[in-house]
Amino acid sequence: ENFIHLCNPHLEKMKEDILYHFALGTGTHDFPALFGDVKFVCVGGSPSRMRAFIAYIAEELGLGSPGCDYPNICAGTDRYAMYKVGPVLSVSHGMGIPSISIMLHELIKLLYHAKCSNITIVRIGTSGGIGLEPGSVVITRQSVDATFKPQFEQVILGKTVIRSTNLDEQLAKELMECSKEIGQFNTVIGNTMCTLDFYEGQGRLDGAICLYNEEEKLQYLKEAYDSGVRNIEMESSVFAAMCNLSGVKAAVVCVTLLNRLEGDQISSSHDVLVEYQQRPQKLVGYFIKKSLGKV
Amino acid sequence: ENFIHLCNPHLEKMKEDILYHFALGTGTHDFPALFGDVKFVCVGGSPSRMRAFIAYIAEELGLGSPGCDYPNICAGTDRYAMYKVGPVLSVSHGMGIPSISIMLHELIKLLYHAKCSNITIVRIGTSGGIGLEPGSVVITRQSVDATFKPQFEQVILGKTVIRSTNLDEQLAKELMECSKEIGQFNTVIGNTMCTLDFYEGQGRLDGAICLYNEEEKLQYLKEAYDSGVRNIEMESSVFAAMCNLSGVKAAVVCVTLLNRLEGDQISSSHDVLVEYQQRPQKLVGYFIKKSLGKV
Repeated sequence: ENFIHLCNPHLEKMKEDILYHFALGTGTHDFPALFGDVKFVCVGGSPSRMRAFIAYIAEELGLGSPGCDYPNICAGTDRYAMYKVGPVLSVSHGMGIPSISIMLHELIKLLYHAKCSNITIVRIGTSGGIGLEPGSVVITRQSVDATFKPQFEQVILGKTVIRSTNLDEQLAKELMECSKEIGQFNTVIGNTMCTLDFYEGQGRLDGAICLYNEEEKLQYLKEAYDSGVRNIEMESSVFAAMCNLSGVKAAVVCVTLLNRLEGDQISSSHDVLVEYQQRPQKLVGYFIKKSLGKV
Repeated sequence: ENFIHLCNPHLEKMKEDILYHFALGTGTHDFPALFGDVKFVCVGGSPSRMRAFIAYIAEELGLGSPGCDYPNICAGTDRYAMYKVGPVLSVSHGMGIPSISIMLHELIKLLYHAKCSNITIVRIGTSGGIGLEPGSVVITRQSVDATFKPQFEQVILGKTVIRSTNLDEQLAKELMECSKEIGQFNTVIGNTMCTLDFYEGQGRLDGAICLYNEEEKLQYLKEAYDSGVRNIEMESSVFAAMCNLSGVKAAVVCVTLLNRLEGDQISSSHDVLVEYQQRPQKLVGYFIKKSLGKV
């Protein structure tokens, strides 16, 4: 049994642990009863997408009925949304490293308090692609920073500490295999660049502030491509770093909403974007079904 | 007239501008008609708090009726929520620098496209206090980083650029004067430390990962206090930097939910926390009323 590895000796001494941004606490909620059977955790930026995912996976696993509603476990706050069906937990994390980092601290503690074991966690997200047709899905090999290094800089008490952003190689291969079996959309394994900003940090020309030109932008994106980067998003590095430290098997599966070599604005129709966003859900849904012997 | 200063020459050449995370666009929405009369923008992390604020300010300004509902202008997305009444716009920004940065890029472009002038923007938020009784309100003098420097590091195309985090001194003084006139809660002007993380970045002992001890934590918080820091939050530095560059008068007004020298967990009752969170709203509501000659 592979339990959560909690890298914090102080927690043992606490009588009660309040997970403030989930509006849950060990003094008010029975974590083992509520979450002890969780084996798969899916996280993504948008609360409504994570609600849609739980309805989708419930139907896929034969655990729900069409039109059935799933209560938000974090209804006491609007910081994050959380849904559960059977062994699957679905949690939103907002946008950017700090936002997903708060969620992951509290999620890892939740899984620890619930005595969960053999957890697989997958981020299903959206991203900008580089050199891929829009709608392609990228399974992350390594999450890299804005200088293409596979590392995450964590500031602790004012000092910067470097953490590894490795992800589970075997899990990435299994997900790639699942995509081949589904055969519905283009999927690649590639590096994912994780930035602190959507506009200047990703070389967009359409933000409120832009002090570089199109040539410099394209040169940067091509350097990223040449280093192995296939998509850009804003959460994967701290996700990989924290899952590593906690001993949790983790993967990042993001659809690309546009090809950044062609432009900056996300101008596809609403319906097209909705269908794109279902692709990581389909892929991870299939993976979960297969893992449970239901394919 | 003080118009928005747009630091991006590329935008002039775009036929249409899609503000993706607001689900608004210049091709589909008449920005001057919708937003041209805006003079005050209030931003805060939580969507429900920003909805509560618009109802509060509507009643204060005599522009709404009790129980009246205000539509979410960004109903086409769940990334941010936006509400408007008269000259006041209320927008949520989620948690952390990257999340507020995306919102501010699109907000500054929105105000520019709408041809707004003489804008005042205030972040009304929550924070951890240092050496203050919980419930105290801090008006930010300077936003400082984790090493107590008044600067924000913006990564652009892989390179780090330092930006100033100065805020409007006169506006801070006017807000302090308003708080004295209200006389309902303790308010101070002080420095605000802006971190990339809620747990390790702020020296908490109760995260999923913690590799330092209580003594090191307290030493760090005391150094912060000695340098003038009175509260810690996660958005003020990029807020100040972007407002500076765009020529918008800006202030940060945060309530402190706890005294970090006493602990890490936010354990006050729901009702107490709700009342604390109304304090920045009351202060900024009074300021807006006074600015409009309605006090």
